[in-house]
Amino acid sequence: MSLLVAVTWETQPWVERFTRHLPGREIVVLGEEFDRSKIRYVATWGPKPGSLDNLPNLQAIFSLGAGVDHLMGYPDLPAAPIVRVAQDDLTHRMSEYMVMHSLMYLRDHARFSEAQRAKRWEPDRSPPIASDVRVGIMGFGVLGQDAAAKLKMMGFDVAGWSRTSKSVEGFKVYSGDNGLDEFLARTDILIALIPLTPDTRGILNRSLFKKLAQDGRLGGPVLINAGRGGLQVESDILTCLDDGTLKAATLDVFEKEPLPESSPLWAHPRVTITPHNAAVSEPEATARYIAQQILRHEAGESFENMVDRARGY
Amino acid sequence: MSLLVAVTWETQPWVERFTRHLPGREIVVLGEEFDRSKIRYVATWGPKPGSLDNLPNLQAIFSLGAGVDHLMGYPDLPAAPIVRVAQDDLTHRMSEYMVMHSLMYLRDHARFSEAQRAKRWEPDRSPPIASDVRVGIMGFGVLGQDAAAKLKMMGFDVAGWSRTSKSVEGFKVYSGDNGLDEFLARTDILIALIPLTPDTRGILNRSLFKKLAQDGRLGGPVLINAGRGGLQVESDILTCLDDGTLKAATLDVFEKEPLPESSPLWAHPRVTITPHNAAVSEPEATARYIAQQILRHEAGESFENMVDRARGY
Repeated sequence: MSLLVAVTWETQPWVERFTRHLPGREIVVLGEEFDRSKIRYVATWGPKPGSLDNLPNLQAIFSLGAGVDHLMGYPDLPAAPIVRVAQDDLTHRMSEYMVMHSLMYLRDHARFSEAQRAKRWEPDRSPPIASDVRVGIMGFGVLGQDAAAKLKMMGFDVAGWSRTSKSVEGFKVYSGDNGLDEFLARTDILIALIPLTPDTRGILNRSLFKKLAQDGRLGGPVLINAGRGGLQVESDILTCLDDGTLKAATLDVFEKEPLPESSPLWAHPRVTITPHNAAVSEPEATARYIAQQILRHEAGESFENMVDRARGY
Repeated sequence: MSLLVAVTWETQPWVERFTRHLPGREIVVLGEEFDRSKIRYVATWGPKPGSLDNLPNLQAIFSLGAGVDHLMGYPDLPAAPIVRVAQDDLTHRMSEYMVMHSLMYLRDHARFSEAQRAKRWEPDRSPPIASDVRVGIMGFGVLGQDAAAKLKMMGFDVAGWSRTSKSVEGFKVYSGDNGLDEFLARTDILIALIPLTPDTRGILNRSLFKKLAQDGRLGGPVLINAGRGGLQVESDILTCLDDGTLKAATLDVFEKEPLPESSPLWAHPRVTITPHNAAVSEPEATARYIAQQILRHEAGESFENMVDRARGY
């Protein structure tokens, strides 16, 4: 009845956390000697090829993060259920990020920062109000809906888009390829919270940006991506910022991380960069969640937040 | 049945707004010839001494802004009721400002901005969460309570302080001089939304800052003042920033406005300056509100938001 911790970084702290939350269980790590037939569960992030082979009694694979795209690319992934970690804490942090950066665009914070640097006193006598600004949340799952509720409470005009048809009280939710164009046409602030799958890789590109609203109160549409870097085409973001298709972008994730020092995004005056920490999983809460799911499973209940392998999330 | 518009700036647009909202009434301005005995109402901001004398039939004075401190200093102010303009729009804007700047402190935005300028990728692996951060709202009226509700929804630990004892569901409200020390001792982010009166002038000073929490998760207490510049002692803010009593300050209002170019606040690395536009009154909404109050009064009802002259707000 062992748990295999398959990570390539900070291995020992994970063992200690799981030992605390699953007292009496055997916790093993890759590289140690252990009996592979005893492994019931794997907790992993970006496992090395081969490391999950030959686990005949595996009952679940837990992803040590919000997404599972790092697992989906793993060759010959064992057939056991994949369970995503869903944490309130991570959801709330992501919403903080979205509310803060949306307000910074609404309130034109960049302009006032620049005025401060130049010691210029220049009030804006007719700023837009929040209800003038249309936020579009692409990906309307747990994270998207929490951000939507908070942005709405701040006064923004919020709608969602979801791949599959979805009904959420208080919000218009567009869906499918047909709904996407209509959704983009009413969006001033585009928030990307969709999972990275073969279908969504590179979806944040020039062709999509050109469909965003050009008649909004912010002087052009803006992008906020704190989902996955693989969703975006960075060369298109730069082109669109320079030709006016996009007014600005706030990016927490990148095609390559850490973002290389040579990237022109770093110094672009209308790009805000954060180092993939919009919503950092709190390791303690992650370990607690996985322990709960294991106990739940052993009590005969089903796992929560199981991944649909066909869909990829 | 005339309305006198007594402002020193943008007079004509105000006349046009009131004409739209009070069709058929006579709207007059200072400097024109008019019959002073016909004046029933005054709408004013910072009237010049003498301009409100000899108005024998005056029934109300409307302040064209959220505060009335500019009227309280007027010599021989007529005895008519003073009515404050209370606008949802202004309240919501003030809350946007407070939520945005509180989140920027929670998320250590200044650090990530600096890292971006230096092209450094430096995630924070154990940032505070919102419930670790105690926001204290000094002045718990309409503005303070709206900000409190929104900050609480974002997860902050929020309490209020009010001069007079007050009970507000969902919040601990400290009151009076006795409650002030206890309130300050549990406050990491101090939000000042108190009215400016002879009692509160200069209240945001070194002696008060020294009572703020020094054990919080932000690395020191921060001040956000978007109330009135007269509340703060700017030389004390600078001293306290430099000796570590304060970690940072966000200021929308100043002892002298516009803030003089010579002020060291402009270039201080831990001061954020905005040009007194945290919550700009929307002139159209102000005119509409005043027209509603006049019609209400003429229908035999009492004015809303009347100022208590003894208290000064």
